[in-house]
Amino acid sequence: MSRLRAALDPTSVAIIGASDNPNKVGGRPVHFLDKFGFKGKVYPINPSRPEIQGHKSYASLADLPEAPEMVIVAVAGDNAIAAVEDCAAAGVKIAVVMASGFGEVDAVEGKAKERRMVAAAHKAGMRIVGPNSQGLANFGTGAIASFSTMFMDMDRAEGHVAMLSQSGALSTVPVGFLRQKGIGVRHTHATGNDADITVGELACAVAEDPEVRLMLLYLESIPDKKYLEELASIALDRDLPIIALKSGRTEAGKQAAQSHTGALANEDRVVDAFFEHHGIWRAPDMRGLVEATELYLKGWKPQGRRLVAISNSGAVCVLTADAATSVGMPMAKLAPQTDAKLKGILPSFATTTNPIDLTAALLSNSALFGDILPVIAEDPAADAFLIGVPVAGPGYDVEAFSRDAAAFGKQTGKPLVVAATQPSVAQAFAANGTSVFPTEVEAVTALHQFLAHRELMATARERRRTHNASEAPVATRSSALMLNEADSLALLASRGIPVVPHRLCLSRNEAVAAFTMIGGPVVVKGCSADIAHKSELGLVRLGVTSADATGDIFTEMEQIIARNGSCFDGVIVAAMAGGRREMMIGAHRDPVFGPVVVVGDGGKYVEIFRDTKLLLPPFSADDVREALRTLRVAPLFAGVRGEEPMDLDALTDAVVKIGELMRDPAARVVSLDLNPVMLGSAGKGCVVVDAVVFHGA
Amino acid sequence: MSRLRAALDPTSVAIIGASDNPNKVGGRPVHFLDKFGFKGKVYPINPSRPEIQGHKSYASLADLPEAPEMVIVAVAGDNAIAAVEDCAAAGVKIAVVMASGFGEVDAVEGKAKERRMVAAAHKAGMRIVGPNSQGLANFGTGAIASFSTMFMDMDRAEGHVAMLSQSGALSTVPVGFLRQKGIGVRHTHATGNDADITVGELACAVAEDPEVRLMLLYLESIPDKKYLEELASIALDRDLPIIALKSGRTEAGKQAAQSHTGALANEDRVVDAFFEHHGIWRAPDMRGLVEATELYLKGWKPQGRRLVAISNSGAVCVLTADAATSVGMPMAKLAPQTDAKLKGILPSFATTTNPIDLTAALLSNSALFGDILPVIAEDPAADAFLIGVPVAGPGYDVEAFSRDAAAFGKQTGKPLVVAATQPSVAQAFAANGTSVFPTEVEAVTALHQFLAHRELMATARERRRTHNASEAPVATRSSALMLNEADSLALLASRGIPVVPHRLCLSRNEAVAAFTMIGGPVVVKGCSADIAHKSELGLVRLGVTSADATGDIFTEMEQIIARNGSCFDGVIVAAMAGGRREMMIGAHRDPVFGPVVVVGDGGKYVEIFRDTKLLLPPFSADDVREALRTLRVAPLFAGVRGEEPMDLDALTDAVVKIGELMRDPAARVVSLDLNPVMLGSAGKGCVVVDAVVFHGA
Repeated sequence: MSRLRAALDPTSVAIIGASDNPNKVGGRPVHFLDKFGFKGKVYPINPSRPEIQGHKSYASLADLPEAPEMVIVAVAGDNAIAAVEDCAAAGVKIAVVMASGFGEVDAVEGKAKERRMVAAAHKAGMRIVGPNSQGLANFGTGAIASFSTMFMDMDRAEGHVAMLSQSGALSTVPVGFLRQKGIGVRHTHATGNDADITVGELACAVAEDPEVRLMLLYLESIPDKKYLEELASIALDRDLPIIALKSGRTEAGKQAAQSHTGALANEDRVVDAFFEHHGIWRAPDMRGLVEATELYLKGWKPQGRRLVAISNSGAVCVLTADAATSVGMPMAKLAPQTDAKLKGILPSFATTTNPIDLTAALLSNSALFGDILPVIAEDPAADAFLIGVPVAGPGYDVEAFSRDAAAFGKQTGKPLVVAATQPSVAQAFAANGTSVFPTEVEAVTALHQFLAHRELMATARERRRTHNASEAPVATRSSALMLNEADSLALLASRGIPVVPHRLCLSRNEAVAAFTMIGGPVVVKGCSADIAHKSELGLVRLGVTSADATGDIFTEMEQIIARNGSCFDGVIVAAMAGGRREMMIGAHRDPVFGPVVVVGDGGKYVEIFRDTKLLLPPFSADDVREALRTLRVAPLFAGVRGEEPMDLDALTDAVVKIGELMRDPAARVVSLDLNPVMLGSAGKGCVVVDAVVFHGA
Repeated sequence: MSRLRAALDPTSVAIIGASDNPNKVGGRPVHFLDKFGFKGKVYPINPSRPEIQGHKSYASLADLPEAPEMVIVAVAGDNAIAAVEDCAAAGVKIAVVMASGFGEVDAVEGKAKERRMVAAAHKAGMRIVGPNSQGLANFGTGAIASFSTMFMDMDRAEGHVAMLSQSGALSTVPVGFLRQKGIGVRHTHATGNDADITVGELACAVAEDPEVRLMLLYLESIPDKKYLEELASIALDRDLPIIALKSGRTEAGKQAAQSHTGALANEDRVVDAFFEHHGIWRAPDMRGLVEATELYLKGWKPQGRRLVAISNSGAVCVLTADAATSVGMPMAKLAPQTDAKLKGILPSFATTTNPIDLTAALLSNSALFGDILPVIAEDPAADAFLIGVPVAGPGYDVEAFSRDAAAFGKQTGKPLVVAATQPSVAQAFAANGTSVFPTEVEAVTALHQFLAHRELMATARERRRTHNASEAPVATRSSALMLNEADSLALLASRGIPVVPHRLCLSRNEAVAAFTMIGGPVVVKGCSADIAHKSELGLVRLGVTSADATGDIFTEMEQIIARNGSCFDGVIVAAMAGGRREMMIGAHRDPVFGPVVVVGDGGKYVEIFRDTKLLLPPFSADDVREALRTLRVAPLFAGVRGEEPMDLDALTDAVVKIGELMRDPAARVVSLDLNPVMLGSAGKGCVVVDAVVFHGA
């Protein structure tokens, strides 16, 4: 761990504002450094006491025998700023600033104070965590520079999970959940306002700790993607799964986040696309962040999603089948020989197809459980297993069940979860190392997350292998100019994207000739780089059926544009495009995440129905096909009610080319909106009918 | 409790197949009757023992000093059938049959055995619970005729919740969850295969127990709606909320249910509509069945859904705002004077707008909590409250928080939930009677369910008040005939539903005249009660622009229908209907639930997009408007991008009339499919363009 070593493994820690009371902000870190076995030097700084919690106390930073590597700034307001300046001057490497009341309260004055601290630090080569930070905690090294209340009643429980958060509470609440499940945490860090070291940068350092095997993130804003991209890259290289809870999904949530950490709002669908692109699983809520943790730590290498469920309750079989189907896990079809063998063991009223219902017969014969598992283990159709024991206790040999389940898990080497409601039953299975959830829905949800996340990581790794992810310079929309439609279509055509046959006509005669060449009926559209909404001005005429009419419309549109005071770039005469479905392709540059491509169902109501999927370039044709599969209109692509399939290859190719266009710095495209893109039957292609492109100035 | 009294409060219980071992199926009920304080007579029957668990044992039913009101049949297979026959002959009132291996295993032979038992019982006036039943448990009377393992480690914990289930495990697992939350249950019954007394009939009896204040149902199939309708009616009358978990939502789930209780598959969307119609909340899973229980028992009378959230964690504020927005609970806008008063109490870096973030300042000053609550209590904008305390402990006065919260709850009388992860904190709040959930998402989910369920019940009650729910006789599809399109349209028109202007023409001349009268362009369609799919045969021609062409097409279609060997009912010449959106209205008779009306987005792909909502008649115009609001296309109705609003009144009226049509026995409509129904701008109405009606023979 070389990067930010002084933040995670300092040789010495001073606490400015140290308190003898372990329940004060300035007392907690002293207490924790002792409690969690920190091996380095601890220097409490407090001029009014000779000793703090058994440590010699110093009057000031200047009185210390050495410049400490890390200083915890536990004083408030402007005193914190002065302390940071002192630290920088003294040669400190890392200052952890706990004081709040900066950028999260006042976006102007507060942010200015943050910048002042950071400037002072950087001039001296010091780095800052915070302000408004609850602090850092590395249980591996005992470097607990935190005032977290949760650590007060927590024993050293070093594990393999790292939790990184901007929020203090959310750095420890997930840890509390994991502790309740007996899972230890190695790191839990709360970075606060991220004025200097961001949660992403710290996460990169933590991801280099080989003891970390799962990383959890809580984020309220992503002002810069750089470190998260680097983090994802490190994580994919060493096969480290990352689960992120990003709040501020809704407008009300975004507003609350603004008050909390001064968070800038991210566009939520782009956040989804970013995580997906990088193989990071996005948790829907706090439960989702931690619930599947145990499964990640098992070392399983899953091969698929087909589930086998076994229970002594038929109802749990039904509920498991419902839950699995709902998340997209099919019930495995067992081999005939498995069924035959099970029939030989189970009573006639049990169910030997999957899900397998042992029924209450288990109460009469506890051996049934251990007898059937080896049979099921041999069936090749199963990718993962769920054992549901909703009711057991007196009359059941729960100890044997848990031993048999553990042996079964070892035998198959495949993911196995148990659903058990009763604490006594759950504890028996857990004691033998099996992952237990209170209900089948929670078990299936966790299993699905684990399996789908592994798939997501594999796809992301493959994408990274085949694409050069070097960054295109970002042209911002503020410097963008709209191209007229003819230039927009020409740009697309030059990139090999099929556009509707058309002619840009600069005179009535050219318009008449264009009609004759293209053949009627045609569409006639006024062309001006000044006019975004042509229809409202009467500059779009569909189904024009004669050369003369085309000529007349040319004249009329020329006059409309002149009256409007706009530049006249000509009149477009275009073929009436055929095709079966109006699709759309869009692209823009997100201020944080860069190029974003959108593909989906098109037409007039695209903003209402939002049946679209976002992709972050670079992406492959496979990525596009997968995106198209998730659309609500997807069933139409294959053809329904006797229709032919549609030309998904052509649409996919167009989307891939738009992705490449957005990554090409020379193209300087800021945004584009192609709607409709008429999609035809297989072999008939797709064609861009309308296009608006904004271009870097 | 008069109905099925002997099942819930028998004066005497005999157990055929009684065992001295309390962990055998035949031993458990004896043990439970003693353990849970049953006051009546207990008669174990077992010829091989003089005494069973301290009770005198009898050799046979005939040896008992009286005919017991209830007999538990704890012997297996054909012995069970014989025992039931003996009971009937002896004058027993209720037999609880635990044996399995009947209809759930063998739909022919097994069901026949069930019918044989029921026939024997009914002849003697006896009723049967089961077979394949885990049994009944009324903790109010101590009548525990069950072999549930869960009751073994359960103390008497009489409460106000009733749990009714077909499944044994699912009758007790929810009880286990409730016990973990300290909530007692008064009834928990598992009815098994429902060969005679169904879970619905038993639920009606239980709903008459005045001590029951919340009813939970687990259902795998609804073969008959009668008792559930009666149950809903009883429940609405006495304001008893019912929450139902109906499994078999998916194909895999339906198959598993078939193996479990021999369940017939219900159409899941109709089940949704049925529960909604009757004010029953449908739980998505087992958690959802029990999670909000506590809130139902508080006696709150909520007035709305606007939430106020308060936390010492900004992140919890953000996550709460996200969660509330997601379920449709807006964050309340607090009054300016509330904000001013909060600013006077809280430090400057706290947030005084809703959600209210106390920040870690609470660690320095525990009094903040108690100081702000009375201020917030006075604000009229709040309908419900969430207090999030994700982290507290040493340094915090958690006792005071929990007292203050309880006092606040009393002061407002409004729903209040707490989200607290740490068990110690959760326990402190719970000890003062406040409802606690581990995370804000769970708290919001439960609160939303409670509030939305109260609204659902109020709507159902109002619907029942205004509509006579007397049942229409059900014509089944097997006896249905298709009307030709002209007759279909005529039937609709006779009910005041607007149909496209058209003429049924029986000769070429009539067709020519119809064109002239209607005015072109017209649609020409061949009409035959034998032909459902006209397009495939070339019997639909759009945009016909001349009288001659109309005449020619008449001749052509007459020939097509003749060649097809179908009856020729004429040719329809119809106006080309205008309108803005293709909607659809459908209706059919569900074999279980009776008439079902469907309304939604129409057109060719209605089965693909399924943007439809089901309604069970009788329903009101308000019900239809609410249904239309839930559609994905709903935003279009108001007009988007400068469009006018659409004529929802007209569409609503048509749907209401279809509901009335389906309830009118004289109309004898079995099913109908109106697609498209062209919906125009406000004031322009809607018009049925195509109609297929099936009619009772």
